[in-house]
Amino acid sequence: MEIAVVHGPNLGRLGKRLPEVYGTKGLDDLAADLRSAFPGVKWTFFQSNHEGALIDFMESSEADALIINGGALAHQSYALADALEAWERPAIEVHISNVFKREVFRHKSLLAPKVNGQIYGLGIKGYLLAAQWLIS
Amino acid sequence: MEIAVVHGPNLGRLGKRLPEVYGTKGLDDLAADLRSAFPGVKWTFFQSNHEGALIDFMESSEADALIINGGALAHQSYALADALEAWERPAIEVHISNVFKREVFRHKSLLAPKVNGQIYGLGIKGYLLAAQWLIS
Amino acid sequence: MEIAVVHGPNLGRLGKRLPEVYGTKGLDDLAADLRSAFPGVKWTFFQSNHEGALIDFMESSEADALIINGGALAHQSYALADALEAWERPAIEVHISNVFKREVFRHKSLLAPKVNGQIYGLGIKGYLLAAQWLIS
Amino acid sequence: MEIAVVHGPNLGRLGKRLPEVYGTKGLDDLAADLRSAFPGVKWTFFQSNHEGALIDFMESSEADALIINGGALAHQSYALADALEAWERPAIEVHISNVFKREVFRHKSLLAPKVNGQIYGLGIKGYLLAAQWLIS
Amino acid sequence: MEIAVVHGPNLGRLGKRLPEVYGTKGLDDLAADLRSAFPGVKWTFFQSNHEGALIDFMESSEADALIINGGALAHQSYALADALEAWERPAIEVHISNVFKREVFRHKSLLAPKVNGQIYGLGIKGYLLAAQWLIS
Amino acid sequence: MEIAVVHGPNLGRLGKRLPEVYGTKGLDDLAADLRSAFPGVKWTFFQSNHEGALIDFMESSEADALIINGGALAHQSYALADALEAWERPAIEVHISNVFKREVFRHKSLLAPKVNGQIYGLGIKGYLLAAQWLIS
Amino acid sequence: MEIAVVHGPNLGRLGKRLPEVYGTKGLDDLAADLRSAFPGVKWTFFQSNHEGALIDFMESSEADALIINGGALAHQSYALADALEAWERPAIEVHISNVFKREVFRHKSLLAPKVNGQIYGLGIKGYLLAAQWLIS
Amino acid sequence: MEIAVVHGPNLGRLGKRLPEVYGTKGLDDLAADLRSAFPGVKWTFFQSNHEGALIDFMESSEADALIINGGALAHQSYALADALEAWERPAIEVHISNVFKREVFRHKSLLAPKVNGQIYGLGIKGYLLAAQWLIS
Amino acid sequence: MEIAVVHGPNLGRLGKRLPEVYGTKGLDDLAADLRSAFPGVKWTFFQSNHEGALIDFMESSEADALIINGGALAHQSYALADALEAWERPAIEVHISNVFKREVFRHKSLLAPKVNGQIYGLGIKGYLLAAQWLIS
Amino acid sequence: MEIAVVHGPNLGRLGKRLPEVYGTKGLDDLAADLRSAFPGVKWTFFQSNHEGALIDFMESSEADALIINGGALAHQSYALADALEAWERPAIEVHISNVFKREVFRHKSLLAPKVNGQIYGLGIKGYLLAAQWLIS
Amino acid sequence: MEIAVVHGPNLGRLGKRLPEVYGTKGLDDLAADLRSAFPGVKWTFFQSNHEGALIDFMESSEADALIINGGALAHQSYALADALEAWERPAIEVHISNVFKREVFRHKSLLAPKVNGQIYGLGIKGYLLAAQWLIS
Amino acid sequence: MEIAVVHGPNLGRLGKRLPEVYGTKGLDDLAADLRSAFPGVKWTFFQSNHEGALIDFMESSEADALIINGGALAHQSYALADALEAWERPAIEVHISNVFKREVFRHKSLLAPKVNGQIYGLGIKGYLLAAQWLIS
Repeated sequence: MEIAVVHGPNLGRLGKRLPEVYGTKGLDDLAADLRSAFPGVKWTFFQSNHEGALIDFMESSEADALIINGGALAHQSYALADALEAWERPAIEVHISNVFKREVFRHKSLLAPKVNGQIYGLGIKGYLLAAQWLIS
Repeated sequence: MEIAVVHGPNLGRLGKRLPEVYGTKGLDDLAADLRSAFPGVKWTFFQSNHEGALIDFMESSEADALIINGGALAHQSYALADALEAWERPAIEVHISNVFKREVFRHKSLLAPKVNGQIYGLGIKGYLLAAQWLIS
Repeated sequence: MEIAVVHGPNLGRLGKRLPEVYGTKGLDDLAADLRSAFPGVKWTFFQSNHEGALIDFMESSEADALIINGGALAHQSYALADALEAWERPAIEVHISNVFKREVFRHKSLLAPKVNGQIYGLGIKGYLLAAQWLIS
Repeated sequence: MEIAVVHGPNLGRLGKRLPEVYGTKGLDDLAADLRSAFPGVKWTFFQSNHEGALIDFMESSEADALIINGGALAHQSYALADALEAWERPAIEVHISNVFKREVFRHKSLLAPKVNGQIYGLGIKGYLLAAQWLIS
Repeated sequence: MEIAVVHGPNLGRLGKRLPEVYGTKGLDDLAADLRSAFPGVKWTFFQSNHEGALIDFMESSEADALIINGGALAHQSYALADALEAWERPAIEVHISNVFKREVFRHKSLLAPKVNGQIYGLGIKGYLLAAQWLIS
Repeated sequence: MEIAVVHGPNLGRLGKRLPEVYGTKGLDDLAADLRSAFPGVKWTFFQSNHEGALIDFMESSEADALIINGGALAHQSYALADALEAWERPAIEVHISNVFKREVFRHKSLLAPKVNGQIYGLGIKGYLLAAQWLIS
Repeated sequence: MEIAVVHGPNLGRLGKRLPEVYGTKGLDDLAADLRSAFPGVKWTFFQSNHEGALIDFMESSEADALIINGGALAHQSYALADALEAWERPAIEVHISNVFKREVFRHKSLLAPKVNGQIYGLGIKGYLLAAQWLIS
Repeated sequence: MEIAVVHGPNLGRLGKRLPEVYGTKGLDDLAADLRSAFPGVKWTFFQSNHEGALIDFMESSEADALIINGGALAHQSYALADALEAWERPAIEVHISNVFKREVFRHKSLLAPKVNGQIYGLGIKGYLLAAQWLIS
Repeated sequence: MEIAVVHGPNLGRLGKRLPEVYGTKGLDDLAADLRSAFPGVKWTFFQSNHEGALIDFMESSEADALIINGGALAHQSYALADALEAWERPAIEVHISNVFKREVFRHKSLLAPKVNGQIYGLGIKGYLLAAQWLIS
Repeated sequence: MEIAVVHGPNLGRLGKRLPEVYGTKGLDDLAADLRSAFPGVKWTFFQSNHEGALIDFMESSEADALIINGGALAHQSYALADALEAWERPAIEVHISNVFKREVFRHKSLLAPKVNGQIYGLGIKGYLLAAQWLIS
Repeated sequence: MEIAVVHGPNLGRLGKRLPEVYGTKGLDDLAADLRSAFPGVKWTFFQSNHEGALIDFMESSEADALIINGGALAHQSYALADALEAWERPAIEVHISNVFKREVFRHKSLLAPKVNGQIYGLGIKGYLLAAQWLIS
Repeated sequence: MEIAVVHGPNLGRLGKRLPEVYGTKGLDDLAADLRSAFPGVKWTFFQSNHEGALIDFMESSEADALIINGGALAHQSYALADALEAWERPAIEVHISNVFKREVFRHKSLLAPKVNGQIYGLGIKGYLLAAQWLIS
């Protein structure tokens, strides 16, 4: 089984940007955690600051399931939401922080109605819970 | 460790009401699943159609953590949100269905900013993931 | 055939509260009128100021049809609307006064999309017309 | 006693248009039903697709009471609402379908605050209930 | 010089409808007042409850100037506003009552930006002042 | 094959009203252009400033397809939209000017969701393209 | 009979500011016109850029009637509206330009519901018409 | 003279919940303060987390005056507002904190238009001022 | 101890303007009441219809505490709110009438978040309660 | 003559994504249809999921005319709208589906006011009609 | 060359009020800085808490250019905006703090569309940059 | 000291696009002006039509300060605003034109609360003033 983990803008600097909000672990740590917890899964990681590159990736990926954290694009990109609607395989949206405690614009995700479910605010561990659900 | 699982109005009929939305498992099944998966936890279950009874329960409970599915009260009760703010212990909000695919009034939870995080749309399994996070 | 007649908050004082709006007949008079006009029906009457008690009643009632006047809860309770959606038997919403001539918040009933139809503004007689439709 | 029954745009095709919403009975069937149920009433029927013609009719009619289904004009015509306010005799607004289950624009009737009461969603029988109230 | 005086829906009953708002003078009285005060003007009077008839009149009229009281259509008819924009001759909008003391929907006239000016709330005399401006 | 071409208020003066917006060709020129380009089609032309007359026409017409330019009624008439929904044959909405460059109220057409498609802003030629699509 | 003519901010420069909107006549010309047209009236003129001074004037004035052009304060000053409500004598609001053709904030006058009527868009002559109504 | 002091949800924990907002005194301290300051008054205290229980209390209470702090229900319960409207005796609404410095939803009280007046933000002493007004 | 009592526009006519709303006592009576009830306080009274004069006063005043009734400026003046924020000493906002029973614009006070608390709707006595709180 | 045909995000999968909405033809089929129908035109095709790439293309293209289907970017990209405004040559916006029957966010195109006209809802044939207009 | 520097309400206390927002320099320091940096300019300084006084000043000033910081009036005074529109000479609006990080009401300046440009958030130095632009 | 100057979409064509709005100078001229005026600064220039590329640049840049003109992305890109928030060094936002005189969507910059200050509407010279502030 292959699971793709997709991150949107500014998340490449995870662990360095706003550590009081996002924690100090980076994308590499996340990848290591996921590989270690689910060694039987084929993991694919993709991060880009480019909306178009995220859509390109999703169009060409043949993974069986998706974990997506769109960053700010979750709140502004109908194009990414359209791509997610065309994915047609299991998908979970993750946000590391509790977006409902932050600015109003982060309270509404355009991606949310296009996925199976959401895990928000549970930090890096949210990805592990998402993976657990996808493989169960 | 004690975890309280609190359900709001109409969830007493879980498994019978709208099974195409909520599935066919009832609260008893959920309790059995949680006890079986986490035998070391002391589980307390509480369901009520009364906003006041939910607040009464939360005021008197001495559990270490909370999993709450407020039902429709999640979207309309500032009183419940105030009670949750006064809880001051770990708490996760769960919705069984993907609320963002349903009526607009369900898109906004007044409880969401008062908890650590949210798990929405992942069915009965969402409670198990919530428990796993709380005990980790 | 059994018909349940459910009244929400403040309607226990019907006939005493705001008689220029609601008239001088109380719930007892209403019950007498219905029993007299439809002697072959088994009538069940329930009034409560508690949203939760109204939902409890609807969950346990086995009546064949429902006439509901939710009082102010008609305009604010998604939980009651959810309970009504789960009723799945004939139901009519009644308001005694013409709510569209009163405060704006009374112009929108959350219960209205969950019932077969509405009879508003026709006074106590509105219940009799509702009963007539339900038994026809 | 004379009762006028007024229908607005597109209701001339009642029974043919959207039968899954409005049923298969036409205006002629409705007239027959009313005459048969209330033979002592003098019935006047008027249907027009023209807002102006509806107002002309109401200005010249000398009926004792009115049953009005304004069709889409109920939701958009302040001119018809002004005419109804000038009617100054008993009047009931009827909609055949439950307008609160349909498009949002149908949830607000400009005519509603100008009549005694409303009967919505009870099909063709709603007119019979209205008549019963008017003659009682 | 020819001046056309155009009235919209429900104004045919001027003097009879809502006399506490509109006064007791009718359209005939108004015509007499205008003819008497400005005998040198050729007066044309037109009233209709039909939006289309008002537009027909304006398309065919060759009057030099216009006084228009659209009634409720002033607040809802873009079609009438378009016709007024195509008039391209002097025009004044009159309302007999002070619309800003009445329902909110009457506070905005769609016709107002299409005329030279407005005279509101000055009763029947408003037409005489309008005429005086048009001939000066 | 019969195609009906329906025009709403103020379009009878096409070619004379606002020529810098609508061009100098009138409805007769349009008819000639259509007859000349599609001689095999039976053409029916109808223009009215009366909403009711437009609905009457559509109720009685037996044409195979419709081209409709509702004028200002496109933006204000739910009754016309209801009639169009009942048409149940191919239909295209045309606007001569680019409505999105004009006043905000013209940006939303109530007719648009009731037709197959829209051709806006392409002048008189828009009708010819519409015809071409309908017969193809 | 005494009539007070009150002007708000920026109107002291009438005739110099935006002559394409307001014309070239100044307040002095207006005074001369009014005195000449109505020699039997005792005229009082007051202009101020200070909201407080306008209210002070109105509190102390003993004129029999008022013509007021509040300038931009008409659209922003509830304090001036309160003062006008306390005036309790005949009053007319005048705007020189057709405010409904200008910025949206000028479409709503807070003073309008506090006066007898309004004359807008008829230039300097609007004051003369207002005076004529007040003395009639 | 009897004065009823009614508290809504979460106020049972006054003195323990959010002491930086509400202070450290509890309901018992408040009762002691009131009894001590106004020994001649018969005091009745009622607190509930249940909207329905608050309405039940108000329906059955025969006190001469009311001091009410509805907690979060002040901002969300039309049913409580209706009960207060039916109270028809002197009543004052109190909030301990300055609600206008807190979340926006607390800025609007549904109870405020149903009482004589409001005392907000003056801490526990606000109740003493309210009592002083009621007995004066 | 010095307390300044500041009144905004139109309140100079207290006792004369709208006595059914504000009562018949004037500012002089209020001053007498306060001096009599709290003889140990040094009282300073200031009323102005000028927003600027109110700010000037507050900038120069060295009183220990403030009671302010801004009149209509309470609802429209951010400048006055800024001045109040800079006051940095105890302050209470008073309204004589229950503003929540009046026009919507009076429901929101820009001054409210800048003071310690509010006393609304308790008439002239509200000032005495405010004074009592400030000196306690 | 050269015509550029530009497609935005997710349209590269045309024919595969949501065939019940967009049909089964892909971009290659569209290109073939256009080349076949208009062999004298020099056709340039460009599709990208990258907003920036679309703008880059438009900045460098020297085509004589443009047909653009921006996909979801039509509804969210002011940057693309700015690029289109700078195009300054004939351009038509096409949507394959009737966007007015779909989600609300698709009802407003930011590109619409920047082109000559729009053809919506007519499927793949919409491009052929657009081409016909551009070359006529 | 003469440059007028105009300050609105509460800015007379610059350096004393909210120093963490506005810094510790006062208007005198600002004047000294400007005179020192641009000795060839004739400087005129004007500050008032009175909207009317600011307009009076601008009507009578014959300076060649203007630097204006309207304080809270920037966000509430259409009268001041009208005066600025009538200025018709170069003008720059300055705010000392970054208004977009503060309350929402400060995000919109009514003065902004009436000046050449804006310099916000750059502290006292913003005035020096404004001056440099005006004399260049 | 190094200053980065970043430009968003469509600004690569500065000097050619809309010269009546933006002037005739291009990015090269701007670079020359800045190098000439501040020869001691190390200047880095970056322009892209790609939101992602702008974020990439900002993530990797080690400049000491930033001048940013986001073009249309200033008004629509939360992702760019997030990147700017993570910049954590001095930054100024510049717009060449007075955005408050243009379309409404340009009045709100998402970048504005993330920078030290703004300079809008002062043309190419705005960059020079920004530089002067950054190096002072």
